[in-house]
Amino acid sequence: MSEESKSYHMDLETFRRNGYAAVDWVVEYLRDVESYPVSSRVRPGEVRDRLPASPPRTGEDFEAMLRDVRDVVLPGVTHWQSPKFFGFFPANGSPPAILGELISAGLGVQGMMWATSPACTEVEAHVMDWLVEMLDLPGKFASRGGGGGVIQDSASSATLCALIAARERASGGECNRGGGDGRLVAYASTQAHSSIEKACMVAGIGSRNLRPVEVDERFAMRPEALAARVRRDRDAGLKPFFVCASAGTTSSLALDPIAPLARICAEHGLWLHVDAAMAGTAAVCPEFRFVNDGVDGAHSYTFNPHKWMFTNFDCNAFFVAERGALTGALGVLPEYLRNEASESGAVIDYRDWQIPLGRRFRALKLWFVIRHYGVEGLRHHVRRHVELARRFRQWVERSEDFEAAADCPLNLVCFRHRAGDEVSRRVLAAVNDTGEAYLTHTVLNGRFALRMSIGQTHTEQRHVTRVQELLQDAAAGTRAV
Amino acid sequence: MSEESKSYHMDLETFRRNGYAAVDWVVEYLRDVESYPVSSRVRPGEVRDRLPASPPRTGEDFEAMLRDVRDVVLPGVTHWQSPKFFGFFPANGSPPAILGELISAGLGVQGMMWATSPACTEVEAHVMDWLVEMLDLPGKFASRGGGGGVIQDSASSATLCALIAARERASGGECNRGGGDGRLVAYASTQAHSSIEKACMVAGIGSRNLRPVEVDERFAMRPEALAARVRRDRDAGLKPFFVCASAGTTSSLALDPIAPLARICAEHGLWLHVDAAMAGTAAVCPEFRFVNDGVDGAHSYTFNPHKWMFTNFDCNAFFVAERGALTGALGVLPEYLRNEASESGAVIDYRDWQIPLGRRFRALKLWFVIRHYGVEGLRHHVRRHVELARRFRQWVERSEDFEAAADCPLNLVCFRHRAGDEVSRRVLAAVNDTGEAYLTHTVLNGRFALRMSIGQTHTEQRHVTRVQELLQDAAAGTRAV
Repeated sequence: MSEESKSYHMDLETFRRNGYAAVDWVVEYLRDVESYPVSSRVRPGEVRDRLPASPPRTGEDFEAMLRDVRDVVLPGVTHWQSPKFFGFFPANGSPPAILGELISAGLGVQGMMWATSPACTEVEAHVMDWLVEMLDLPGKFASRGGGGGVIQDSASSATLCALIAARERASGGECNRGGGDGRLVAYASTQAHSSIEKACMVAGIGSRNLRPVEVDERFAMRPEALAARVRRDRDAGLKPFFVCASAGTTSSLALDPIAPLARICAEHGLWLHVDAAMAGTAAVCPEFRFVNDGVDGAHSYTFNPHKWMFTNFDCNAFFVAERGALTGALGVLPEYLRNEASESGAVIDYRDWQIPLGRRFRALKLWFVIRHYGVEGLRHHVRRHVELARRFRQWVERSEDFEAAADCPLNLVCFRHRAGDEVSRRVLAAVNDTGEAYLTHTVLNGRFALRMSIGQTHTEQRHVTRVQELLQDAAAGTRAV
Repeated sequence: MSEESKSYHMDLETFRRNGYAAVDWVVEYLRDVESYPVSSRVRPGEVRDRLPASPPRTGEDFEAMLRDVRDVVLPGVTHWQSPKFFGFFPANGSPPAILGELISAGLGVQGMMWATSPACTEVEAHVMDWLVEMLDLPGKFASRGGGGGVIQDSASSATLCALIAARERASGGECNRGGGDGRLVAYASTQAHSSIEKACMVAGIGSRNLRPVEVDERFAMRPEALAARVRRDRDAGLKPFFVCASAGTTSSLALDPIAPLARICAEHGLWLHVDAAMAGTAAVCPEFRFVNDGVDGAHSYTFNPHKWMFTNFDCNAFFVAERGALTGALGVLPEYLRNEASESGAVIDYRDWQIPLGRRFRALKLWFVIRHYGVEGLRHHVRRHVELARRFRQWVERSEDFEAAADCPLNLVCFRHRAGDEVSRRVLAAVNDTGEAYLTHTVLNGRFALRMSIGQTHTEQRHVTRVQELLQDAAAGTRAV
């Protein structure tokens, strides 16, 4: 073979065969995932120690890679796709999402602008509008008007984009041009996600200029505390500009009262961003739309289909009421990206809606998920998860050992052992050590709490019941010690 | 079926069948991609108009989705995976990368911390170290020491992270705490990528505080111009803190002289970031390592395997010499993420190396690509692309109609029609209108230039030769007009 025609590529028939093998592997993984210890047992460095120090000089067969995925990678995996996973928050995948990711990888388009692959932008804008309808979000968030939705990698990035749009609105674009002056002030409850603080750091606002607003007994932001802090900052000559309300905090799924917060924002001209990362999916069910009560007053809204909507990471949905505020803050146009479609103003160029320039075709997987399940199927599973959580909470309330540590409006149950933090910690460790379930923790009012987050794609009653047994055994174990 | 047991999920055997069909579809797509017009012909709104206004109430079959991908999506796709794609920059996929993305989607792990799936972090750190070896980067960028590499979604995000780390180093952490003071100044050449300006906007530095440093006749930054600007800003009481050198500009692949820039940075205590997004892959070949000459003096370095290393988007590689500078600037630790492994200090938590919190298992696809091709295979294809560009440039030089518009150190040829901008524009439009090739443009020294970027996975001599014919025809056509 001449050097010209020699190829190291995987030919298409080999690719097809390997593709089938990879599909088989995923099927086998999802079939067996329940049988693995949920949380990985490896020690730091153990995975790396099994990998060759140097890259291979010549190519290897795909069989070798699949073998290493099984033998080297799998023992180092914590199984977020296990129905026994109750940690942090759901990070769901599903077959239609996986198929969408596969097709997207095959197409390999770069969707930075409409012109670089129109379908990538149009399917995304369209599916975002579907979400507005499905969750009964305000029409101003739909792209048919002046707003619109966009897929981001994470709620962290969405919140950062909202913060920057708000920053530029408040500074008349001066922060983008001349940098910050350290006088803009943002607000979120003491329970808000760490991404708000990170966004304030990244955007040059400063973490000291993020005011932690006091919460009530349900861990929800107190509107009067917000109002007082805003007035105090105003009086001190500072510039309040941004409020992040949590529609479901990460710690305990507390719901900030958006409507009264919106009134305060309107009064003082503040941008209101609503972070519903974890809980937003619930609004697909009419009876759970209380999560978004008051969202009409928000300038931006975000939730994660990659948490509870069966769409694998990364797929965050971010909506703005006025897209000009976003694109004005994030747009930069070098010569080599100029094109007729952009200059016509008739299209969306998503590069101006996000931090990175490039983007892949993430809408495909979300489109597939919505079409596969239909609104009805999504509702069914959300309702099931909420019902499982309700029953689990009843069990907690009836238990002699445990007690609830927070309200449970949806699918997250926070609870603790009645004997206090130390025993609660030991119970959590004991349950997780069995490998039969995985829960994580938080601290509420200074006290340790276990978190039972129910939302994995395949979690059923029997998995929750097993957690109850494990908790009971662990509690008995701590008594025996 | 009871409501309890009723499921809307795709069962695993159906998933397997649909998975095979999706693989077949991708195989068919890659087989036929060459036969499609490279750039999509759709008008704005045309794709959306073919989608139902509302989401489906009940679920649909996967066949319907595949059909819509074929009938609705495909006409709206610009084919970055076509060997006839010569626009912007390569955004390569390859079968092993697609398979890695598929397995990653199947595993569905959340790699925000080591503890949330150790293998996700360890394979990534390991493969990043492989890249250090493959590209002969300075050892300080390897994770075995105090530095390390991380996969970001894009060079834009990598540069933003570098800028923030530099900002915090320069401000003693004060910007993160108290916000900016508008006096930090960054530097990049007039030819640097727009992401530097965007990063300055996002990070609260301000675009006015990004100094556009003059370039020489090869479009490379002039060290003496940088030194003069830094001195002037110092004298004015400002705080120079960050220089971004381009190891291959987007416009024309101009190579900034990193070594002399590094000396200036060392003298003034500035952070030097090297952006080799497009060209960095070339260093896999010893004879092309000139792209990274002087990189020993850099604090951070980035290039995109998702451009020229056959790994589908998103897969940017970002390296820092001192990871403490990065994690110190981007780390935030809420209670619900605390865990033993993180607190031991023995592990990498990549959430502190990036803007978002969450992350998927992107290292798998890069690992697969390196293992499939081997270093030898990657070298082969990079060499082929550079050789194709060299021949194309010779053709330009010999042509009566065209002339070179810039040097061609690697795989990007900038050229123009001798008759000036208007004819060059018409030629570009005419070539792209044929659908048989797709090139984009830039402006160099105020003059319009066509860009022939050669690096698509499957581009061969015949595709380049066809472009030459199309250019000749188009040039003849403009004479006829």
